[in-house]
Amino acid sequence: MREAKLIIADSEHDSNMYYATGCLVPDDFIYLEINSKKIVYIDDMEFGRVRNEALVDKVINYSKYSPGIDRDTFGRILIRILSDNGIEKVYVPGNFKMKYAKVLLDNGIRTEVVEPFFKERISKSKEEVEKISEVQRINESAFKKAITVIKKSKIRKDRKLIYNGNVLTSEFIRIILQKEFVANNCFCDYSIIVSCADDTVDPHEAGKGALIAGESIIMDVVPKSSSNRYYSDMTRTIVKGKASPEIKRIYNAVAEAQMIALSEIKSGIRADHIHKRIQKFFDSAGFKTGMKKGKMQGFFHSTGHGVGLDVHELPRINLNYQKELETGNVVTVEPGLYYPGIGGVRIEDMVVVTEHGCKNLTHFPKYLEI
Amino acid sequence: MREAKLIIADSEHDSNMYYATGCLVPDDFIYLEINSKKIVYIDDMEFGRVRNEALVDKVINYSKYSPGIDRDTFGRILIRILSDNGIEKVYVPGNFKMKYAKVLLDNGIRTEVVEPFFKERISKSKEEVEKISEVQRINESAFKKAITVIKKSKIRKDRKLIYNGNVLTSEFIRIILQKEFVANNCFCDYSIIVSCADDTVDPHEAGKGALIAGESIIMDVVPKSSSNRYYSDMTRTIVKGKASPEIKRIYNAVAEAQMIALSEIKSGIRADHIHKRIQKFFDSAGFKTGMKKGKMQGFFHSTGHGVGLDVHELPRINLNYQKELETGNVVTVEPGLYYPGIGGVRIEDMVVVTEHGCKNLTHFPKYLEI
Repeated sequence: MREAKLIIADSEHDSNMYYATGCLVPDDFIYLEINSKKIVYIDDMEFGRVRNEALVDKVINYSKYSPGIDRDTFGRILIRILSDNGIEKVYVPGNFKMKYAKVLLDNGIRTEVVEPFFKERISKSKEEVEKISEVQRINESAFKKAITVIKKSKIRKDRKLIYNGNVLTSEFIRIILQKEFVANNCFCDYSIIVSCADDTVDPHEAGKGALIAGESIIMDVVPKSSSNRYYSDMTRTIVKGKASPEIKRIYNAVAEAQMIALSEIKSGIRADHIHKRIQKFFDSAGFKTGMKKGKMQGFFHSTGHGVGLDVHELPRINLNYQKELETGNVVTVEPGLYYPGIGGVRIEDMVVVTEHGCKNLTHFPKYLEI
Repeated sequence: MREAKLIIADSEHDSNMYYATGCLVPDDFIYLEINSKKIVYIDDMEFGRVRNEALVDKVINYSKYSPGIDRDTFGRILIRILSDNGIEKVYVPGNFKMKYAKVLLDNGIRTEVVEPFFKERISKSKEEVEKISEVQRINESAFKKAITVIKKSKIRKDRKLIYNGNVLTSEFIRIILQKEFVANNCFCDYSIIVSCADDTVDPHEAGKGALIAGESIIMDVVPKSSSNRYYSDMTRTIVKGKASPEIKRIYNAVAEAQMIALSEIKSGIRADHIHKRIQKFFDSAGFKTGMKKGKMQGFFHSTGHGVGLDVHELPRINLNYQKELETGNVVTVEPGLYYPGIGGVRIEDMVVVTEHGCKNLTHFPKYLEI
């Protein structure tokens, strides 16, 4: 049976499509790989550009199949393209769109989901690690600017921070971060977390309003490079002024948990074992995890995840990922503890897995009080 | 047969999921709508936050179905959720992921693709039009800053533009635009087009390097609001210094084509008829469209597309969209002509369709030479 790999997606947001073609197209187009021969089918509008830019063997203008066809209707020509190439079975990524799959199924094309679609994406090449590090350097310079502003701010009587005469807010810090990103050809297409006090106990709460002295401030930021297309991911937790003894205790436990995870990571170790080890550490240090008054508290997210062309990709460091880490994996290490009434703490670095350990790609210092 | 609407997606990038839930979650979660009752199923980590934020009837923590389950594996619990609710058939959006569809099909759940999934998204409410306009105002203030810089630049002997002693580039203009966006809570997750000279003949070429006097410069920019989540879309074509007679002729034709389209648009008119009208206008004015030396030239993209939570959404103004425009549609009107050796011209406004015409949401002036 003649088989092919098939992707239909845009390449500005779908990272498999970008990985396959190396060029940016904002609307869905077709990628077909037959015996390692890579073919792109694209419309009139993009044809000239994509023929020059795409890192594939052949670029075909699909208007020859049906003039006037567009991206909303090209399911119809898909079958002709497959039959021209004698394809009876296709392998598609997990996020392959059902509207296209339906056309395949209705026409008797065997369709199999393959995940991960490009296995090689899980272990990064030296060049990929460099690209991620490049974005991380920019992330760190943005953090530095943001934290400097918080450092320079004054504490008002009501514990709000004042900077240049104005109340310092999550929103303002977000703008400082983003200005540094856009000046360096990066952007953020996920919410930028700058949360404070009660907001920090929800790990993905973006945060809003005034920053408060003595409360934990979580900054978790995932810039993406417009040019090299890779993400970086870093989290720091700080307190302006004096932190409470409870926050300090949590911070130290999270920092220690991160050290443990970092010391365990190496090629060949099972990801779920690292996660269990961190759960155990928090448990035995007296940091309980569970539902309380309808809200989770303690340590209730994964220890880490892969970072690359997607910000959350394989491998995972959690209970369900019962596989070994491999040399070249780039993963976050981000334990966290969250207790309503006290606050949340998360510290996140990115590392690349090596044969005997890991190399930390994050150089930003860790401290609580500023 | 008991039926439900089903979405499984993240809501930072999937606009149906955002439309359904009104809250931002960076990873896939489950939305189920049974007889207008809206239920979200979500993991431990997001539960507390999403329960507060989601505009739905009920938020359920799916860890009760299987502790430790995560987003990579929750296809497994999907069937339990559906069976608990007695669901035998689901309606899913066109971009429903095949990896989840496979679980449904393997378990005998009838699965039907519905496009558009939320019909009401095609015609915008007054509030939605206001949100889009808000983003458009920010887009215009960014264009103003960028064009001012081009205006202030000097023309060097080699026709490159000099600003503050440096060669003015696409990249620099992009940063000016983005700084204005991030200062106003917007971001760009699609390539920002600032192309010049030969690059302008490929409509989606982002552009790079020095801007050149006397050549057409196309700026096509689609900021998205981080807060209200809507896009705007605008294109202007300018020439620094003197434009050639050929560019002027093209510019005037495109401007006239846009006027024609704007004057035709109203509730009840067929979208494809408007597109054909513009094709005909260009043809009879002597602007030929077709393949030349393996490259399309003339007018070879659609006249417009819907704008909303997605930058390209229904309705379309092209040959394949053989439906009537309706009151409340927000569409772009963006004819363009592209001739290698001369250059490209595109002018794009956004309008809201009304009963007897349309209201232009774009207030930015149109001029060629600056």
